[in-house]
Amino acid sequence: MTQPSEKALVPFVSVDNMMRLVHHIGLEEMLKDLADYVEEDFRRWELFDKTPRVASHSDVGVIELMPTSDGEAYGFKYVNGHPKNTAEGLQTVTAFGLLADVYTGYPVLLTEMTILTALRTAATSAMAAKYLAPKGADTMAMIGNGAQSEFQTLAMKAIIGLKTVRLYDKDPAATAKCAENLKNSGLTVVSCASPQEAIEGAHILTTCTADKQYATILSDNMVGSGVHINAIGGDCPGKTELAKGILERSDVFVEFPPQTRIEGEIQQMPEDFAVTELWQVISGIKQGRTDARQTTLFDSVGFAIEDFSALRYVRDKVAQTPFHEDLDMLADPDDPRDLFGMVQRAKP
Amino acid sequence: MTQPSEKALVPFVSVDNMMRLVHHIGLEEMLKDLADYVEEDFRRWELFDKTPRVASHSDVGVIELMPTSDGEAYGFKYVNGHPKNTAEGLQTVTAFGLLADVYTGYPVLLTEMTILTALRTAATSAMAAKYLAPKGADTMAMIGNGAQSEFQTLAMKAIIGLKTVRLYDKDPAATAKCAENLKNSGLTVVSCASPQEAIEGAHILTTCTADKQYATILSDNMVGSGVHINAIGGDCPGKTELAKGILERSDVFVEFPPQTRIEGEIQQMPEDFAVTELWQVISGIKQGRTDARQTTLFDSVGFAIEDFSALRYVRDKVAQTPFHEDLDMLADPDDPRDLFGMVQRAKP
Repeated sequence: MTQPSEKALVPFVSVDNMMRLVHHIGLEEMLKDLADYVEEDFRRWELFDKTPRVASHSDVGVIELMPTSDGEAYGFKYVNGHPKNTAEGLQTVTAFGLLADVYTGYPVLLTEMTILTALRTAATSAMAAKYLAPKGADTMAMIGNGAQSEFQTLAMKAIIGLKTVRLYDKDPAATAKCAENLKNSGLTVVSCASPQEAIEGAHILTTCTADKQYATILSDNMVGSGVHINAIGGDCPGKTELAKGILERSDVFVEFPPQTRIEGEIQQMPEDFAVTELWQVISGIKQGRTDARQTTLFDSVGFAIEDFSALRYVRDKVAQTPFHEDLDMLADPDDPRDLFGMVQRAKP
Repeated sequence: MTQPSEKALVPFVSVDNMMRLVHHIGLEEMLKDLADYVEEDFRRWELFDKTPRVASHSDVGVIELMPTSDGEAYGFKYVNGHPKNTAEGLQTVTAFGLLADVYTGYPVLLTEMTILTALRTAATSAMAAKYLAPKGADTMAMIGNGAQSEFQTLAMKAIIGLKTVRLYDKDPAATAKCAENLKNSGLTVVSCASPQEAIEGAHILTTCTADKQYATILSDNMVGSGVHINAIGGDCPGKTELAKGILERSDVFVEFPPQTRIEGEIQQMPEDFAVTELWQVISGIKQGRTDARQTTLFDSVGFAIEDFSALRYVRDKVAQTPFHEDLDMLADPDDPRDLFGMVQRAKP
């Protein structure tokens, strides 16, 4: 047997090890850390290579590669979206990611990203809310109590000090699951029977439902002034959650306009609909919330740079822990010209 | 500890296991098999999703993702190209690949592809030579005796019955390495001191040198009529190996014209320079070699479909062998909506 050299080994973080890492660091601590990494990368937004995602569509779903680079590291995420999977006992979305060294082209991290994506999405929402939610916001309506809901809620707790969450889902079992998962979180958890009830007294309205269709989770008359809307579920063409009227009277903040205009809530609006890029708010170039009566909306679709931040974070953290295994993924002959000799010498 | 379900496990073929697989099947047998898989996919060329590769360039190299799909399976290869790496004791090119099920979006194979790429490149060259080389061709000049040279030679032996190889490299140590590696191959191996000497009596001229520059490995007066040129090394913008005059009087066969016009030998030629697509020859739509005096040229740059064929082959073969390990790469909660619960239950 040939022993691979150290350079040929790529640290791999399995699902099991990602969960161990989460518990080792602490979930809320990790959400805070991730928000810091995402914020740091949003501040240096302009130096990133912002390739659009590369999608392969079929009748039943999509497989996407989302690459980006800051010139030092290169990262990509593989992610699928198959809404019909749930009925077959499979995940709608699975993901993994890779980080590589731009200087050598060698991969330096391979990791599961299903859990990590849920964490980075929640951390990004809470980071946006830090800049956009009204002062003292401590109550959130969480509409859609699926896989994202607990992460969204705990990120708001960890990063902006949320105290109360008001849950609603059209399936009461989802609300019961979310309430149960959050019962020891230190938050006041209120299960609601309607979206109207959920938004009562809420400063932040988070929508995160799963139907792949134009839906109206929040209608125009439901949303008063002075709130921050964190719209997570409108994230692909044909899938939106908010009434057009809400978009018309909100100040809309987005990650990357060319992508959000196709995938986000604003796909309902004309192409020149005014939006503010979140990175410009974080960098101090543009203003976030300026007034207590303003309705702000973060039209979140998820962008490759957020995955990059998450990959950077995992690479930095996991190196000092046992929560990874080394994969012999890169052929590394002693003499680079003698790949054949390496193969021959491995002959049993 | 949480046990991942079977669906969450992705078979992974390490470098070590790829070498075991090669020896288990036999190198020449595997080259023949790979040529069959590539040929099969070239016959159904039109149904493939032919996305251009997604490249991220830096001052010192490039990192590329090469995706494709036949509608049932989706594959991509990660590959870097860093010519300066060799001087630092690293590989110029490393690669890995992934195959996924289009219907579920779930990955079904992760594998090293440095060795596999060398094998599929050689198999594709030999498959092309089967259609393009003169009848009875049994002598090849192998110019450039680097990492590809032994694989190219053995594929020609296995697939078209090569008997003699004439080696040349500007570095005699590379030629000595290649001759040593091939000494028990059953081929007559002749080490030559010049390209002129190497091409004496050869029916197939394979060029596979590494310099990233416009070079003239074969000059116009060196190439007589009736030969088949297998040009491997001209494979990125700014890198060619053949004199323009050779291209002018050859019938040129390519994989995917939009890519070859940028990366191949024909980057030297006008945009409307006539080429024949190899898949059309294999499908019987166009003719390959029609005449013993004709000079044919396979301007090979490597295309995503060849990687796809190789991934398909490894998936089919490795399932019945112990030469893989299962990676816990995909989060798979019992209730798809309860990702959080899965993470919580993993708490130590």
